[in-house]
Amino acid sequence: MILELHSPLDMHLHLRDGDMMKLVAPLSSASFAGAVIMPNLVPPVADAGAVQAYRQRVLDACGDDVFQPYMTAFFRSYSEKELSRLKELVFGIKLYPAGATTNSEGGVKAMKDAEATLSIMQEMDIPLLVHGESHGFVMDREAEFLDVYRDLATRFPRLTICMEHITTAAAVQLLDEFENLAATVTLQHLLITLDDVAGGMLRPHLFCKPIAKRPEDREALLQAALSGHPRLMFGSDSAPHPIHAKEACGCAAGVFTAPIALPRLAALFDEHGALDRLQGFVSGHACALYGLNPPARTVRLQRREMLVPDAYEGHGQKVVPMDAGCTIPWRLI
Amino acid sequence: MILELHSPLDMHLHLRDGDMMKLVAPLSSASFAGAVIMPNLVPPVADAGAVQAYRQRVLDACGDDVFQPYMTAFFRSYSEKELSRLKELVFGIKLYPAGATTNSEGGVKAMKDAEATLSIMQEMDIPLLVHGESHGFVMDREAEFLDVYRDLATRFPRLTICMEHITTAAAVQLLDEFENLAATVTLQHLLITLDDVAGGMLRPHLFCKPIAKRPEDREALLQAALSGHPRLMFGSDSAPHPIHAKEACGCAAGVFTAPIALPRLAALFDEHGALDRLQGFVSGHACALYGLNPPARTVRLQRREMLVPDAYEGHGQKVVPMDAGCTIPWRLI
Repeated sequence: MILELHSPLDMHLHLRDGDMMKLVAPLSSASFAGAVIMPNLVPPVADAGAVQAYRQRVLDACGDDVFQPYMTAFFRSYSEKELSRLKELVFGIKLYPAGATTNSEGGVKAMKDAEATLSIMQEMDIPLLVHGESHGFVMDREAEFLDVYRDLATRFPRLTICMEHITTAAAVQLLDEFENLAATVTLQHLLITLDDVAGGMLRPHLFCKPIAKRPEDREALLQAALSGHPRLMFGSDSAPHPIHAKEACGCAAGVFTAPIALPRLAALFDEHGALDRLQGFVSGHACALYGLNPPARTVRLQRREMLVPDAYEGHGQKVVPMDAGCTIPWRLI
Repeated sequence: MILELHSPLDMHLHLRDGDMMKLVAPLSSASFAGAVIMPNLVPPVADAGAVQAYRQRVLDACGDDVFQPYMTAFFRSYSEKELSRLKELVFGIKLYPAGATTNSEGGVKAMKDAEATLSIMQEMDIPLLVHGESHGFVMDREAEFLDVYRDLATRFPRLTICMEHITTAAAVQLLDEFENLAATVTLQHLLITLDDVAGGMLRPHLFCKPIAKRPEDREALLQAALSGHPRLMFGSDSAPHPIHAKEACGCAAGVFTAPIALPRLAALFDEHGALDRLQGFVSGHACALYGLNPPARTVRLQRREMLVPDAYEGHGQKVVPMDAGCTIPWRLI
């Protein structure tokens, strides 16, 4: 069984910088035609110069003529002039509530402070990408943030708002309430629940933000993906951390899935008899929604077992992927 | 400010065996008059000979003339003759659902298989201690088990049943439904929620079973302890694992609190103006409930800062305590 995917896109990717990016960027560019690159470096990527410079470093690290990095800028108050310049350089602007996740300390403290910039973005048709978590109890953070999405979607009806890495059944429902809401979902949130993170042994390599939720949440996400929901897109949120930052006293949040994402998704969609929906999930929905025209790249996958490496190493870095040391039933060919 | 506690008891303690026990047992016997010793070794402590031998090893490891180990046997089907013999040697019998926690693989698979033994225990007045978790979703396991407690409490009305290490508001409520139910609660479940384990960085040294729950659960446990509920007792569930088993890819469940438990409890009860309730919580309730007459030992605590060590080391073992490297406002003197 061979499956061809045309121009697969990862709509939410962390490439980091420096040596870590040199290790992980080629693992994404090998199997995707493009990816939306997150801006939460230290300091954040928050002006045109930083976007241009980071884009060049991404391209250098990928060492690939095809791969298209869709850059993002870190949300702050931008002037109309700044946004005009940024619009030429970025795919969208990523909003983080201050302190919600890795390197988000400079994020938004109060949503009302964001309104002026959001108005200009709406006029200029620049998509807004949001890490949607409150500062509440860890299992409630996404659900508590949904009212912010409702408010934004109502007040900026022509702004495309993407709920990044959704993890709850409630977020899936919300997607159907507003035409201007879209969402990405990760590989791990289609597969795991909090049980996999902390139900047996504690498994740091499955710890991420938002944290994996309840079985009924995973089921709702999976059904939405398998059913071909046109505003639900694959975004890996692949987020590498050095092994010493994961297997440690205070483990950093992030699951590294970039190199296994497409075979693992093929296995999942195959298992549910939904392989015909995978092209839309990993490319078609995003192209239609955002009007993207990604580079041509055909990725071929085969229903044949693949042993996931224990770790990926290089440039002095070592990163453990999800499913490390396990066999998955599909592979890239 | 000086506080004297008379014959404090830890009603739920894991001492392990061998070198680990040599390291941790003196840290309990230094500040408690006695403790209920859990039987989940490999193989489990499940006959009179094993109880006697383990008790002697515990006494040797403590190296203390006062400390009283209240031994337990691992629940299995016992004959009347076996229970007659055990009654002389143990404080109670500990029931684990198979696979619910560390070294519980030999536990009970179906509660109906336990009935004959429970009937004899009831007649002989041997307390039943229970690790009360289902095999469901990690946040629901205790709540799902409460019907088993209801059933046991109803069908064995003269059997004293202790719900070990309760973690939910629902379990606190259940305590008031049946006179023959009692409960222990740990230090950590009075202090932390899942947010502390996985809300920021992942913190393996706060990972235990049952996992810490929601803020409203912690609040209910704390209020029950502070109010002096007569059937709620302190049981640390202090559960040492070597540092390499905690800060690892698959972290073992257990929080090591034995050496800091009394000062940390004093700080907590002091903070809430309930220092007068601490004696009951750490000794009086257990003595009244079980008719214990523990060795005389007066433990003195002072409201003066104590720096918790980063780790306790010895006998080739290294264990990280809760609050490692932190300052707590009370100390043992």
